[in-house]
Amino acid sequence: MLAQKYYWAFGVFVMSNFVLTMLAAVLTAYIAPAAAGSGIPEVMAYLNGVDLPEVFSFRTLVIKVIGCIAAVSSSLHVGKAGPMVHTSACVALEFGARRFKKYRLTCKWLRYFKNDRDRRDLVTCGAGAGVAAAFRAPIENGAAMTNATANVSMWRSALLWRAFFTTAIVVAVLRALIDVCNSGKCGLFGKGGLIMFNVTADDISYGSKDLLPVIILGVIGGILGSLYNFLLEKLLRVYSLINEKGCAYKLLLAAFVSITTSFCLFGLPWLASCRPCPINTSEACPSIGRSGNFKKFQCAPDHYNDLASLFFNTNDDTIRNLYSGGTDNAFSKYSILIFFATSFFLGIFSYGLVVPSGLFVPVILTGAAYGRLVALLVGSHSTLDHGLFAVLGSASFLGGSMRMTVSVCVILLELTNNLVLLPLVMLVLLVSKAVADVLNSNIYDIIVKLKGFPFLEGYGEPYMRQLTVSDVVTGPLQFFRGVERVGNIVHVLKTTGHNGFPVIDEPPFSDSPLLYGLILRAHLLVLLKRRQFLPNCSLASSDASRLFSPLDFAKRGSGKGDDICDIHLTPQEMNMFIDLHPFSNTSPYTVVETMSLAKALILFREVGLRHLLVIPKCSSRSPVAGLLTRHDFTPEHILRLHPTLTEIKWKRKKLFRFYFR
Amino acid sequence: MLAQKYYWAFGVFVMSNFVLTMLAAVLTAYIAPAAAGSGIPEVMAYLNGVDLPEVFSFRTLVIKVIGCIAAVSSSLHVGKAGPMVHTSACVALEFGARRFKKYRLTCKWLRYFKNDRDRRDLVTCGAGAGVAAAFRAPIENGAAMTNATANVSMWRSALLWRAFFTTAIVVAVLRALIDVCNSGKCGLFGKGGLIMFNVTADDISYGSKDLLPVIILGVIGGILGSLYNFLLEKLLRVYSLINEKGCAYKLLLAAFVSITTSFCLFGLPWLASCRPCPINTSEACPSIGRSGNFKKFQCAPDHYNDLASLFFNTNDDTIRNLYSGGTDNAFSKYSILIFFATSFFLGIFSYGLVVPSGLFVPVILTGAAYGRLVALLVGSHSTLDHGLFAVLGSASFLGGSMRMTVSVCVILLELTNNLVLLPLVMLVLLVSKAVADVLNSNIYDIIVKLKGFPFLEGYGEPYMRQLTVSDVVTGPLQFFRGVERVGNIVHVLKTTGHNGFPVIDEPPFSDSPLLYGLILRAHLLVLLKRRQFLPNCSLASSDASRLFSPLDFAKRGSGKGDDICDIHLTPQEMNMFIDLHPFSNTSPYTVVETMSLAKALILFREVGLRHLLVIPKCSSRSPVAGLLTRHDFTPEHILRLHPTLTEIKWKRKKLFRFYFR
Repeated sequence: MLAQKYYWAFGVFVMSNFVLTMLAAVLTAYIAPAAAGSGIPEVMAYLNGVDLPEVFSFRTLVIKVIGCIAAVSSSLHVGKAGPMVHTSACVALEFGARRFKKYRLTCKWLRYFKNDRDRRDLVTCGAGAGVAAAFRAPIENGAAMTNATANVSMWRSALLWRAFFTTAIVVAVLRALIDVCNSGKCGLFGKGGLIMFNVTADDISYGSKDLLPVIILGVIGGILGSLYNFLLEKLLRVYSLINEKGCAYKLLLAAFVSITTSFCLFGLPWLASCRPCPINTSEACPSIGRSGNFKKFQCAPDHYNDLASLFFNTNDDTIRNLYSGGTDNAFSKYSILIFFATSFFLGIFSYGLVVPSGLFVPVILTGAAYGRLVALLVGSHSTLDHGLFAVLGSASFLGGSMRMTVSVCVILLELTNNLVLLPLVMLVLLVSKAVADVLNSNIYDIIVKLKGFPFLEGYGEPYMRQLTVSDVVTGPLQFFRGVERVGNIVHVLKTTGHNGFPVIDEPPFSDSPLLYGLILRAHLLVLLKRRQFLPNCSLASSDASRLFSPLDFAKRGSGKGDDICDIHLTPQEMNMFIDLHPFSNTSPYTVVETMSLAKALILFREVGLRHLLVIPKCSSRSPVAGLLTRHDFTPEHILRLHPTLTEIKWKRKKLFRFYFR
Repeated sequence: MLAQKYYWAFGVFVMSNFVLTMLAAVLTAYIAPAAAGSGIPEVMAYLNGVDLPEVFSFRTLVIKVIGCIAAVSSSLHVGKAGPMVHTSACVALEFGARRFKKYRLTCKWLRYFKNDRDRRDLVTCGAGAGVAAAFRAPIENGAAMTNATANVSMWRSALLWRAFFTTAIVVAVLRALIDVCNSGKCGLFGKGGLIMFNVTADDISYGSKDLLPVIILGVIGGILGSLYNFLLEKLLRVYSLINEKGCAYKLLLAAFVSITTSFCLFGLPWLASCRPCPINTSEACPSIGRSGNFKKFQCAPDHYNDLASLFFNTNDDTIRNLYSGGTDNAFSKYSILIFFATSFFLGIFSYGLVVPSGLFVPVILTGAAYGRLVALLVGSHSTLDHGLFAVLGSASFLGGSMRMTVSVCVILLELTNNLVLLPLVMLVLLVSKAVADVLNSNIYDIIVKLKGFPFLEGYGEPYMRQLTVSDVVTGPLQFFRGVERVGNIVHVLKTTGHNGFPVIDEPPFSDSPLLYGLILRAHLLVLLKRRQFLPNCSLASSDASRLFSPLDFAKRGSGKGDDICDIHLTPQEMNMFIDLHPFSNTSPYTVVETMSLAKALILFREVGLRHLLVIPKCSSRSPVAGLLTRHDFTPEHILRLHPTLTEIKWKRKKLFRFYFR
């Protein structure tokens, strides 16, 4: 560029972007498809109680880290926060459960992580550590994780203290690394301390006349945010059609977006006119060969291209530029407009690719540009600093698309280290969230829905109050007798996909049919593998605790469970029996069949269940009326069974959502 | 003082303190005893699910406000944060439920607050607003309320958003008031903006050599904090013995503490020597006739008494003085030591009096003095600013006595508006909490226990895993038949204090005894008052919905429930019948009698129940084995039934508490 070889420069730019994008895309598409996207919807679903086999594997972890670095470096308009959260969650699970066993490093206290609940806690802490590391801003851990886990099934009070502990360690490590890197050997890493965007506009003051512009900013931000969600949903549907056709199509799509992005980034700054450098600036202007606010691009000496300053910076630096106070005249109206539109659409187009890509940074960046644009349009009608407008713009756009008010508020305040802004940020967030909630639901909910996870909402839909649990119980119930024939168990396990079965005692083991307990598929598989069968239908004489240790039934890492097809039994063995009594959960949670669905959902969700037994009101019939799983509470399932409810649902839902979330 | 009439000054000081203390004490003792103390344990207990009749009444509200102002003005070493939280909770409940009805202002949407759950949400938001107003620092609302509600039974995800909304309004109102008061007409109120202790030490930096002093500070702070809790518990026991003897004794106690406090505050500064005013200070020195850092007291011109500066200031100003940077030489070692000891013991002695009194400010003040003391002792071994040491001292003392790590961390950071401190504050909090947790439990738990509230902890004690629910079910079960004789209902309601009764259908209404549902005492009282009885034992023909509206069964404000003794029925009516079927909850939550107590506790606590029905394993017996209430899950009840568990409890509990809270 300095030698005015613009075509050469363009070629190098396009090629390096292309190669990096392709590296990320090839790795993701061929080795770990689960590493694509931000990973936050997957973490949310996992914390909600959905088991996802490949999402937290070691392979995904490695590809996510490499792919995220490549994708962010490749000038694609993607963020790093989401992938970092996913990465941390992967590390948490790997550390807690799997690798250690493989390498014989398992120690005694790791057995605490052999169950679902502790693993979910671990993932929560891991995700919190990821957020803290991504933003280098630790307090929002508490708030963000509260918010995240308020939306998930399994929240416990001890978690807060553990998450706090985790964050403290993240902060300590970060600080130590920053101290080491302060010498400048680590590139951009050491810069900025623990607070990233240290806004140092000294005298921030605002009065009642600034309220109107701020409220308008919030309203339009809410509309833009929900438009963003709307467009992203449509585009993700189109992308998923393309991606379904095979890996080649995925790569082609990534290549196309990469080249388009390069053209935009390199081509658009030519539209902006050169501006003279400000006179009393502490920074080098134009900044050449280093990260800085005043990019020379094609300009003459002592001039800079404001649009290039926005495009040719790391995302962090661009945000810092937009947030910085006292720079009202640094950017022209048209440059900001072009940057806003480009950022808005590139953010949408880049998300669905097969590369690890976060949403948070593009949204915050687009919002900051939007805020600056509003500031320039409002002009002298408001005395607020334009950098402050940028912060509020980010808040409104985040409020409009992500809707996580408290977390966003805390994250923004930590990023800007300025608590005086708080009232304005809160106001903007409330306005934009309220506006956007009327229009559609938040971006993560949309993605979770598109991915088809059976996500349980924090609240029951209104129509659930009109249904009883017996209205949604379907199909013939599969159950086992207290002492069951092996062949029968194998047959049932092979022909159904259920993960839990009621155990019912019948004569001669009890006077009348009686619910004894609940047995899990995983435990049945362990029993079948051990082949400790009984020759005839009687209670087992030997003590089960001598034959099995509790660790035999410990939950394995996801995706490594046994499969019924791997177990081959002889015909003699198939005719033998197993006494299921010692292995059943003898006190499963139960509800009566007349209970309202909304009430059963509260139990299911608050206690964090996987199986909920439905018992009949009248004891003379069979002792179990059905078995509810997570799937039975999803709106899709319920509305398929009761199609007439659909209309009521949507009429009420909008108001409901506005009040209650 | 200026005219050197020291005895006169002392007399005025003692008398004004005495009169104000007596005002607070007389009002509290004779009009609203529930207004005594901080109120936070009561709010915690209410949110945990304990109904407290008088604690949130209008009378308590008024006395709390007046009493708190009088008590804080009377130089007693008490805080205002706790009473403000309690006040806000009262306002929330009054607004939501009671007054409006009385003044015929009830409108349609207020019916949302006619149930327990919404009321608890309202109180949570109210308490959050109180915290925000007390510290003028809004974000910790999220964290503090999370923490508070993590310890209570009934947490729901929608709450976060509502609490956030509430806080936004508090911030807006506060800012508006501060703007109005900026002219200086409101005394001390307008000062300080939204951040109270704006520490402006410019260059805060710390390195690895500061770690050791900080860790030692945390360890000793943890020990001091638990010592504080220990002494406070002992003293509260003594005080409660005195207070039980009658109002006169209560007042005598308050008078004694008030006079002692006055003697301490006025007498101790004479021990300190006068110090020359610093030369280049922006403040007036000595400050006469106004709030300031350099009190003249008995000193010569251009000198100040450092101990008097600490004693004769508002608590807020003293904290600000101790926190301010660059004042390493402002206080002498002995002054700080005297102030620390006085603050430590006066804080303990002042809490149990019959005046509204908070704990937070005394603890934060004592901690700040402790931090300064450590700083003076460490001397040149650390490069940290002494003001920073004061902040860390507060953190360690708060961590040692209150243990609410996350909230304390956020509150301190907001108060000091300096996020750079975060890693050190977290470290100190972790160390002091860990140390103190080994020694005893946190201060609010101690007070809740002393007050005898049936508070349900967030986790089950380890011994609960060894018990089944049938182990703690006691006494003969009181139940009603589906159609029950009025006289029988009246008899049972008069002879028992139970609030919920199972309804069991027997022949001829069913083939075999069958659990129909659960009916509440409050609903039975409504039925008895209406006198819509049946002449004989048969199902009611008329539709219940025509005779009663849902509002008849809406929960009234606490302390205003009906009483069975107010209902007088004729002998004819006593022989008539009521059909309980339409009024029963037909799908109560149930557990099987073999379920472990720990598992039942999870259900009880997470879903927020008041009654949990226990059904027998075998259906041939009576359809209900018992009814569990909050009381049955308290350690006191369980350990009385199973005394052998006591030792196991204590051995395991300490470790357990350390890991899991």
